[in-house]
Amino acid sequence: MQVQQVTKESKVQDSQLENRARLLVKCPDKPGIVSVLSTFLYKHNANIIESSQYSSDPENGKFFIRLEFHCDNLQEKRPQMEKEFAQIAWDYNMSYNIFYRNQRQRTAIYVSKELHCLLELLWAWQNGDLDTDIAVVISNHEEARSIVESHGIPFHYLPANKDIRKEVEAQQIQLMEEYNVDVLILARYMQILTPDFVNHFENRIINIHHSFLPAFIGANPYDRAHKRGVKLIGATSHYVTNDLDEGPIIEQDVERVDHRDDVPTLKKIGSQIERRVLAKAVKWHLENRIIVEGNKTIVFH
Amino acid sequence: MQVQQVTKESKVQDSQLENRARLLVKCPDKPGIVSVLSTFLYKHNANIIESSQYSSDPENGKFFIRLEFHCDNLQEKRPQMEKEFAQIAWDYNMSYNIFYRNQRQRTAIYVSKELHCLLELLWAWQNGDLDTDIAVVISNHEEARSIVESHGIPFHYLPANKDIRKEVEAQQIQLMEEYNVDVLILARYMQILTPDFVNHFENRIINIHHSFLPAFIGANPYDRAHKRGVKLIGATSHYVTNDLDEGPIIEQDVERVDHRDDVPTLKKIGSQIERRVLAKAVKWHLENRIIVEGNKTIVFH
Amino acid sequence: MQVQQVTKESKVQDSQLENRARLLVKCPDKPGIVSVLSTFLYKHNANIIESSQYSSDPENGKFFIRLEFHCDNLQEKRPQMEKEFAQIAWDYNMSYNIFYRNQRQRTAIYVSKELHCLLELLWAWQNGDLDTDIAVVISNHEEARSIVESHGIPFHYLPANKDIRKEVEAQQIQLMEEYNVDVLILARYMQILTPDFVNHFENRIINIHHSFLPAFIGANPYDRAHKRGVKLIGATSHYVTNDLDEGPIIEQDVERVDHRDDVPTLKKIGSQIERRVLAKAVKWHLENRIIVEGNKTIVFH
Amino acid sequence: MQVQQVTKESKVQDSQLENRARLLVKCPDKPGIVSVLSTFLYKHNANIIESSQYSSDPENGKFFIRLEFHCDNLQEKRPQMEKEFAQIAWDYNMSYNIFYRNQRQRTAIYVSKELHCLLELLWAWQNGDLDTDIAVVISNHEEARSIVESHGIPFHYLPANKDIRKEVEAQQIQLMEEYNVDVLILARYMQILTPDFVNHFENRIINIHHSFLPAFIGANPYDRAHKRGVKLIGATSHYVTNDLDEGPIIEQDVERVDHRDDVPTLKKIGSQIERRVLAKAVKWHLENRIIVEGNKTIVFH
Repeated sequence: MQVQQVTKESKVQDSQLENRARLLVKCPDKPGIVSVLSTFLYKHNANIIESSQYSSDPENGKFFIRLEFHCDNLQEKRPQMEKEFAQIAWDYNMSYNIFYRNQRQRTAIYVSKELHCLLELLWAWQNGDLDTDIAVVISNHEEARSIVESHGIPFHYLPANKDIRKEVEAQQIQLMEEYNVDVLILARYMQILTPDFVNHFENRIINIHHSFLPAFIGANPYDRAHKRGVKLIGATSHYVTNDLDEGPIIEQDVERVDHRDDVPTLKKIGSQIERRVLAKAVKWHLENRIIVEGNKTIVFH
Repeated sequence: MQVQQVTKESKVQDSQLENRARLLVKCPDKPGIVSVLSTFLYKHNANIIESSQYSSDPENGKFFIRLEFHCDNLQEKRPQMEKEFAQIAWDYNMSYNIFYRNQRQRTAIYVSKELHCLLELLWAWQNGDLDTDIAVVISNHEEARSIVESHGIPFHYLPANKDIRKEVEAQQIQLMEEYNVDVLILARYMQILTPDFVNHFENRIINIHHSFLPAFIGANPYDRAHKRGVKLIGATSHYVTNDLDEGPIIEQDVERVDHRDDVPTLKKIGSQIERRVLAKAVKWHLENRIIVEGNKTIVFH
Repeated sequence: MQVQQVTKESKVQDSQLENRARLLVKCPDKPGIVSVLSTFLYKHNANIIESSQYSSDPENGKFFIRLEFHCDNLQEKRPQMEKEFAQIAWDYNMSYNIFYRNQRQRTAIYVSKELHCLLELLWAWQNGDLDTDIAVVISNHEEARSIVESHGIPFHYLPANKDIRKEVEAQQIQLMEEYNVDVLILARYMQILTPDFVNHFENRIINIHHSFLPAFIGANPYDRAHKRGVKLIGATSHYVTNDLDEGPIIEQDVERVDHRDDVPTLKKIGSQIERRVLAKAVKWHLENRIIVEGNKTIVFH
Repeated sequence: MQVQQVTKESKVQDSQLENRARLLVKCPDKPGIVSVLSTFLYKHNANIIESSQYSSDPENGKFFIRLEFHCDNLQEKRPQMEKEFAQIAWDYNMSYNIFYRNQRQRTAIYVSKELHCLLELLWAWQNGDLDTDIAVVISNHEEARSIVESHGIPFHYLPANKDIRKEVEAQQIQLMEEYNVDVLILARYMQILTPDFVNHFENRIINIHHSFLPAFIGANPYDRAHKRGVKLIGATSHYVTNDLDEGPIIEQDVERVDHRDDVPTLKKIGSQIERRVLAKAVKWHLENRIIVEGNKTIVFH
């Protein structure tokens, strides 16, 4: 089976990726920031492809910007540009991050028994919607092995439970290092993570929770939604922090349900929401569209 | 100003209303119920206009049905039909309710300073969407007086706060009796009601809560939604019980928001959701489409 | 690869399927129909599991009903019940259809190069959402072969174009007979069908059109949507008739787009709509929830 | 009746409006545009409050930007800034428009017998959502007079039909001039406009069409939607051009319907869509968020 042969589309030709980068900046808001950033890029003959910005408060707030630019011979110019930009950042108290498009992010997907979110990510990835290398899939069950391996992706079975959590997480961290992973996706991975593990990958673990947070934090949200008699059910993708289901929300969506829908039906409807919400959140993360600020996200669609 | 002149449409001609009724039944599920109900109606030459039913569990559950029927000379036949049906109900352990369409329900609207839900109800009512007589509007502020009185509807200003709650509620109950009110609509009425008041109007008080319950129960939901960084905000219409914001949910809806939306913007977006959710819930209640079962609703759309 | 092992859920236990059936009826509306139908079922100790009905016009119209019932020893009783029901149908001028749940419908999927709709159907099928045997996949390209065969489903490559249409369709009809197919699903099959072929499978061919019909009938709807500058794009699933894209609509949905979305992006967004709209339409068809009346559908959700 | 007393909120204090402006620019895309614009603003101590941009094609396309900025003493600096900017625009082949926030746009609303869109605009306006002076309401019927005049807005009854179109339009143009009107809103105004009239107000007439364009162009869209059996109905707000219902689309939305909904019900559901779609389109126009390019709109939400 060679599903990978499905053509991968991309707006940017591969040969041009080395001349593309994204600059993310956050700093105290004051006049002149856009001027200095755009003038810097112009001086280096970089053309702005996409630009999004946000001021948290016009008077006395913070300024956030995401710039994607094209620059011929970017790899040659890169050291000089980085040096100059470091000085600008210093002058304007900027925190910043430059993502070069030729350095594709590497993903690990964590999954348990329910495979719908994993399958959606594989589908989106084959379809060219997720600009990433899926480096490895980790699971505490064997259900996903055949589908994962049929895509040529390494699969690691690591049993997990409360008693062996520490040892398993140590193995997982080692695997993440071996596979050089940038971002971890919990695609219905039904295990609690320890604070140590979470801290190790701050703002780099994306979870899908099967409720419209902050409703139904914790276990069995569909059962509780059924009991409460809600008329919409939802799903929430968020970065994992050490407060359960309280991390910065990336994306949410809902579907209408009614009194006829029992818990298994809610789960089926919910699985449709989960897979599309998680796929969007992962896509935006990989496109560097998300800035975490406090416990909230700024998402530059 | 004569807004009332806006034509009131209705699918049923007024002269035909006296021959229309709705029968709501709940009982233990067993074979033959639909047969006995439909045969009863057929025997009396009643034609079923609309029928909706629901079994909570095919094996061992409860059965719910809503039948709207037309019957020539219904008012004459009514005593005999009611007598016969009482026997059927006895035999099948049915709880039931017959609503005659020529007896229009009477509504009281409670409102505070924010008028968008009140205005929507008035608009829907003028438009012929709410089959009710709006008997009276009660408010603890004067903001709504001119618009209410311009529609020819009595307006009562009753100041309300924690200290005088008991006396005020006594006055309100008296007014509800004077105006012969069937259903109370809290259209952003920002006062807590006592258990006595709530019990007095069980399953007859409809509230609009400005969040997607059970998220953000209680005060200031928009501020808390903003702080949590949710990507959708919502509103919930429910029957009022003595558990704050925990009553049976009738309808909910949401709108998409993002990081740029401050609290006043959330309130503006939210007010659009509130008014349409409340208007739907009130419409369904007036059309006898809602059965409360435990702490949940069955809504026969 | 053994994706088929993913557990297939169903509300009805397999052993009970032989005691389940669905009765669909259409007839001139008049009093007593529900009574006669429900009394017939009751007499045979059949319990109504789900019931939906619709009158096209209370005064002088047509009546439609779908009843799902459980009846112990249904297979034994079947000849007698069918005989009795034939008489009722005669008396009331009913057209009717009885679908026995133990006779699973057989599906053929037609696909060309774009596989997203096929993949969705396979996913839903594995997930237990489509109560069918996928008998065969037909394609005028080879792209789908490996994924189809990895599911253990026969795949037939039949090249197709204007010049050889007649011959190809003859082969297709023969294959449909060999595989004993009940319903044909065009999952982005990019070939025009001849009137002969369409007539051969009346109301049994389900298509997905990549626009919100009746907007953008015909070829290249995404290009034309882009040119027109619409703010929502859609997809439509319908039964195929001999009027191009004019058959009875089963389901439609839309997604929001904006000025930044070029044609390839519209196609990507659209493919998400297409797959979920087609999957719903197929599910409802297999559950016998659709009645075609004139050029419209009644869908009993 | 004094509905106007409902508090008008606004994010910008009235005293600050004189220091606020919006700059809209379109020009051939090339590197350095953002740099020159932001540097120009910075030099004049203007702070960018909101910025949105779009490039129609990164390689060889057009560039569009909307900048809202705050500048102390803007009214004093204005002549010098406008002079300098004219030179920049010349150098970069820019078309541009500067909107000063202290110059509130003036609106005329055209309406016939159905008032729901008018009522929504009045509601939104009272609620502070529409930054405009409603200068006058024009109608070919008397239905709207009392509600309009109760808001203190002049109402003009101008009978209109095919035979007297020319004379009536002459009167209307004169009224638009007398009332100094910037934008005309057709809030379900059921009259065809002549090319002369339309040309007179190019890109300044906003219409609401009661279908999801380009489906059901022309008359009686709800009847035709019912006949076609669509599963969603919609509404479209667009600028009026001399091609009927073919002008640049500003906003569209839809609602789900089903086989039970007759034409009057479709109209009721549709009226809800119409009023919210028109209100959004008008709001965005008044906030100068819309750029018309060819027959399409760029809307900077």
